[in-house]
Amino acid sequence: MPLPYLHDAFLLTTAAARQMFAAAAAEPIFDWHCHLSPKEIFENETPRDITQLWLSGDHYKWRAMRGCGCAERLVTGDARGDEKFAAWAGCQPKLIGNPLLHWAGLELRRFFGVEEPLNAGSAARIFSVCNKQIAGGGFTPRELIRRSNVAALCTTDDPADSLEYHAALAKEALGFRVLPAFRPDRALAIEQPGFLPWLKSLEARCGAAIGSFAALRAALSERMEVFAALGCVASDHGFAKPPFAPADVDTLERIFAARLADEALTPLQAEQYQTALLLFLGERYAAHGWAMELHIGPMRNNNTRAFQSIGADAGYDSMDDAPVAQALSRLLDALDARGALPKTILFNLNPKDGYVLGTMLGNFQGGGIPGRLQYGPAWWFLDHIDGMREQLRTLGNLGALGTFVGMVTDSRSFLSYPRHEYFRRIFCGLCGEWVEQGLYPDDAQALEGLARDVAFRNAAAYFSRTKHEG
Amino acid sequence: MPLPYLHDAFLLTTAAARQMFAAAAAEPIFDWHCHLSPKEIFENETPRDITQLWLSGDHYKWRAMRGCGCAERLVTGDARGDEKFAAWAGCQPKLIGNPLLHWAGLELRRFFGVEEPLNAGSAARIFSVCNKQIAGGGFTPRELIRRSNVAALCTTDDPADSLEYHAALAKEALGFRVLPAFRPDRALAIEQPGFLPWLKSLEARCGAAIGSFAALRAALSERMEVFAALGCVASDHGFAKPPFAPADVDTLERIFAARLADEALTPLQAEQYQTALLLFLGERYAAHGWAMELHIGPMRNNNTRAFQSIGADAGYDSMDDAPVAQALSRLLDALDARGALPKTILFNLNPKDGYVLGTMLGNFQGGGIPGRLQYGPAWWFLDHIDGMREQLRTLGNLGALGTFVGMVTDSRSFLSYPRHEYFRRIFCGLCGEWVEQGLYPDDAQALEGLARDVAFRNAAAYFSRTKHEG
Amino acid sequence: MPLPYLHDAFLLTTAAARQMFAAAAAEPIFDWHCHLSPKEIFENETPRDITQLWLSGDHYKWRAMRGCGCAERLVTGDARGDEKFAAWAGCQPKLIGNPLLHWAGLELRRFFGVEEPLNAGSAARIFSVCNKQIAGGGFTPRELIRRSNVAALCTTDDPADSLEYHAALAKEALGFRVLPAFRPDRALAIEQPGFLPWLKSLEARCGAAIGSFAALRAALSERMEVFAALGCVASDHGFAKPPFAPADVDTLERIFAARLADEALTPLQAEQYQTALLLFLGERYAAHGWAMELHIGPMRNNNTRAFQSIGADAGYDSMDDAPVAQALSRLLDALDARGALPKTILFNLNPKDGYVLGTMLGNFQGGGIPGRLQYGPAWWFLDHIDGMREQLRTLGNLGALGTFVGMVTDSRSFLSYPRHEYFRRIFCGLCGEWVEQGLYPDDAQALEGLARDVAFRNAAAYFSRTKHEG
Repeated sequence: MPLPYLHDAFLLTTAAARQMFAAAAAEPIFDWHCHLSPKEIFENETPRDITQLWLSGDHYKWRAMRGCGCAERLVTGDARGDEKFAAWAGCQPKLIGNPLLHWAGLELRRFFGVEEPLNAGSAARIFSVCNKQIAGGGFTPRELIRRSNVAALCTTDDPADSLEYHAALAKEALGFRVLPAFRPDRALAIEQPGFLPWLKSLEARCGAAIGSFAALRAALSERMEVFAALGCVASDHGFAKPPFAPADVDTLERIFAARLADEALTPLQAEQYQTALLLFLGERYAAHGWAMELHIGPMRNNNTRAFQSIGADAGYDSMDDAPVAQALSRLLDALDARGALPKTILFNLNPKDGYVLGTMLGNFQGGGIPGRLQYGPAWWFLDHIDGMREQLRTLGNLGALGTFVGMVTDSRSFLSYPRHEYFRRIFCGLCGEWVEQGLYPDDAQALEGLARDVAFRNAAAYFSRTKHEG
Repeated sequence: MPLPYLHDAFLLTTAAARQMFAAAAAEPIFDWHCHLSPKEIFENETPRDITQLWLSGDHYKWRAMRGCGCAERLVTGDARGDEKFAAWAGCQPKLIGNPLLHWAGLELRRFFGVEEPLNAGSAARIFSVCNKQIAGGGFTPRELIRRSNVAALCTTDDPADSLEYHAALAKEALGFRVLPAFRPDRALAIEQPGFLPWLKSLEARCGAAIGSFAALRAALSERMEVFAALGCVASDHGFAKPPFAPADVDTLERIFAARLADEALTPLQAEQYQTALLLFLGERYAAHGWAMELHIGPMRNNNTRAFQSIGADAGYDSMDDAPVAQALSRLLDALDARGALPKTILFNLNPKDGYVLGTMLGNFQGGGIPGRLQYGPAWWFLDHIDGMREQLRTLGNLGALGTFVGMVTDSRSFLSYPRHEYFRRIFCGLCGEWVEQGLYPDDAQALEGLARDVAFRNAAAYFSRTKHEG
Repeated sequence: MPLPYLHDAFLLTTAAARQMFAAAAAEPIFDWHCHLSPKEIFENETPRDITQLWLSGDHYKWRAMRGCGCAERLVTGDARGDEKFAAWAGCQPKLIGNPLLHWAGLELRRFFGVEEPLNAGSAARIFSVCNKQIAGGGFTPRELIRRSNVAALCTTDDPADSLEYHAALAKEALGFRVLPAFRPDRALAIEQPGFLPWLKSLEARCGAAIGSFAALRAALSERMEVFAALGCVASDHGFAKPPFAPADVDTLERIFAARLADEALTPLQAEQYQTALLLFLGERYAAHGWAMELHIGPMRNNNTRAFQSIGADAGYDSMDDAPVAQALSRLLDALDARGALPKTILFNLNPKDGYVLGTMLGNFQGGGIPGRLQYGPAWWFLDHIDGMREQLRTLGNLGALGTFVGMVTDSRSFLSYPRHEYFRRIFCGLCGEWVEQGLYPDDAQALEGLARDVAFRNAAAYFSRTKHEG
């Protein structure tokens, strides 16, 4: 007789796991990487309905709906809210084994108290129950964040962003902290059509012309000071594969000048520019005591027709599979050789890179910071039970799992905090299995300490902006 | 106390799994990709003995025998049938963990009622029992197919093939359908010595000279009509890595002319030709409503001495490990941009490509067909419990497992249908574990529906040749 | 209630596994690849303390300590033995899931009878208990080897090495055999600064100038005769990726002459030289009946600052991720085509290569030797429960696990033999699961035979230097 769907002890198959989870569940959340909108947190509006909360911006769900055969009208089109919700509900039974199923179930339980499985038969009933609750209050962004026991969260912000909502939020008594995080992907994307317009926006923000690579570096430095003043503790980068092609100053200025003149760059020139800019930024992050997050592996906007009709971040991304070890090693070593390697968190999107990153960490640990280099939590296409267990086992096998800074939602949705609960169950479940198998001492104090460290305390210490001896 | 070897509930460790398997087992088989010979089905001869059935053409077994130290005389040489059978039997105990062991055990049980494990001690006894049964009848190709409850099967046919046996079989009341599938690998292999002879055979089949790339496309179109008239619903391609190098019409005609003149092509020229031909073919498949199967990863004929003495498909293949994501993305997008992406099934031979393909699907889903892009079942070197569970978990984590078109034998043997049973056990076993863990509702109707869908119904619907809106 | 930490049946969850392990545990150890020092075995000194035994040369532990935040002074610096030991002990609880934790626990149990888990609280007590035992005797290299029931071990020796300690040990009644193994990595590393100094040392050893590639081959041949006379049965190679770039004799001599003149070589020239030398060496290994071990995947000395301050093999290595299939296939085929492919053992450091190597084996099996090509045991960063289970499952799925030559310590430490026990538990545990699931007959004789074969007998037979028909 199986236990019920998403029962209280799901994923916690041992006594040790349940004991650990009790300790972990009592900890607050430090969501150190997400895509929540500071504007929405500031404006703090009640959502229209569960469809807006769930389906208005979540490309994970859109993608799953297309895979189940839903017409685009029901996904991103002009169908009514109840139609879209019913379409999504109808997909659920086919999503066996998919984390979207578990996330939906947990969100219905934790925020709405709905335990009935979602499917075509229950869709109308659940749509109505949820919407009544939303209308009754408790579902604004700030309320959802507080209900989730979030101590702090880091958003994702462009260097040219005004940070006006961050500044405004910093003045309010929220009960949680909202920190900006520095994401200069557009500064690195020199080969893309959007580069020059972005540069204009940065000039406007800084109130100064950017006519050289040196001027760009100065402008970014200035913005980093603004980010720092608003509590920034982390930067973030995403790329299909890490760049590494060193070049001298003259070459770099020539490349930058060519781009300003709207000349086409060679792939090597783009990589030279990106390498130099990353080295510069890394050095600044180290000086600020920020962590540098490197998200490696996405291959974006694969569907040209969809990109032209719907745009970016619409569910048409997948993973690249280029080799990454050599370039990543040289990039980190170049920073280390300057005594300027910041705390660094390496994320892989392609599972083939897990062991490469997991062993890369060890090449640059030290400086007196436990887990100075981190192997980031399973992310995006790996953010599920198998991916998380694999990430945890990889880190366990290769490093010191007890120093891990743990989970992030990486989400655009205010309902996504149960992913921390999901992660904590998986972490405690795995550790409990090891205890049960005689592979770790059954030492309640040590196990509860591990649970609390990985749930919250490691992240809180790691992101405290302590500067280190390079 | 372990349960006996291959007992009735093996791989079905939960009540939910056993319930699902009962539903799955009642479904017929749609074996939508195999290498059975239509000629042998037509001629329908009783095999000489179990050695002919098992060892005359099965390079999986040959390879295993060589690994166990058998001399080539006992593998593909002139040893007697009983000697070869005894050699194979002697290997069995060393093949612990290998699917060949389980397949052999299942085939002995399901077709011969033999439950005794095969090994050196039982070899002579089992050889004799099986041969008596074969002589007694029930072991012709058609009988084996009917005993296996096969509704339809798709063979693998060259465009230049006459399809005479398909035409003949179409006129008989078989109790199952035998459909051709279009496999133009030799049309794509422009760089290989066999290309010009193959082109001659296609000219002979079409009764027209093929003096240009345009003429080749016309000839292939003509053959596709013939395939379609005989019920073809699928094409099939195999390559080490997907090509993508676009070129204009003049370039392509020059490449083709050079090849006709027996000039050597550069690798780029070969890739340009292959890209153009694949795009043309894909567009035609979409027009016919066929599925396009892409088998990615084999590296063939690695052993030159063996190739020269025994030939191709003799057990000397392994897997390539080149990156595939970029080229595959561009190839599918180029078809999609023309509104001509057919239903497509992506197979990986190298496990490193599983997540790349599993996420690639999502870039091109839509058009109102559930699972329009499919992640093909674990195949060849991945066709075992671990490989199948990994394929199912990958699809579950990344997509909609409930839309999966399920298993194929991919086999040259008329005894290989128990691989469908094996797959169904693995699928139901995995789903049952999820239910047991509280990760899917314990909803008998939904679970039995999933079991029947993945066992047969999804494939039957998918291969019905419905054309889609591009 | 979990069973205690590292209890007697840990990793043996079934009756079949426990039965198999009883058979395996009775076998001696053939440690056919390690990095023990023949000089230390010859000199046979009692270690100063547990810190010297554990922490003086083990870069696995150093790396883990850095990851836990230990200052370098406590790792490779001038801290006292008790300080270093306490630092290492303090790391243990954070190493949940790491094999270093299990190895430490097993070594404390098997050599010192200490069952208390090591941590900050128990450090001083355990330090004292272990040191008293060491002072009391039984901890010299030879005693530790004998206490571990080692029948034979193969060290790792440079061609230019005098082998004087091997010669001296060969005259003693040790109770176990110490065999040299031929590791010509420095002969292949033509592009590295150390190549010419190494060549000088080889000239000195051979007493003849080496002015040509032909002369180098002759010198290496001469050294191989010396190795063979001292019982060598194996060679060993390590590289980030296998080379394959054939070149003619004149080209090779020109490359060699250029290097002698201290000219810079192109990457292609280096690869041509390496290819030619490997083919030559492989042919000689085949003639000697030696096994050729290829360790594929390390990327060494990633941290320039640490390399300059501490040197090589200090815990700053990780794994490369280049494609390997094509080059490896061509290299093995070139040897096979000459009838000169030796027994070969392929090791992968990057898990992505497991299935590539596991299928590569099958391309070259035969010649009447069971498992003539071997898939080497999980190694270095993969030497843990997950890595070993994956290696065993890969070999099981793709080949004949019953022919596997089993485990090696690959270690610099005389305390590392419990890794064989760990491996045997994992192997027997996995086979027991298969029996329990009905996937292998519950045949005690067959299972005990498998356990004894993989624990010792296969290795003893494989490394017996029987020459084969090419």
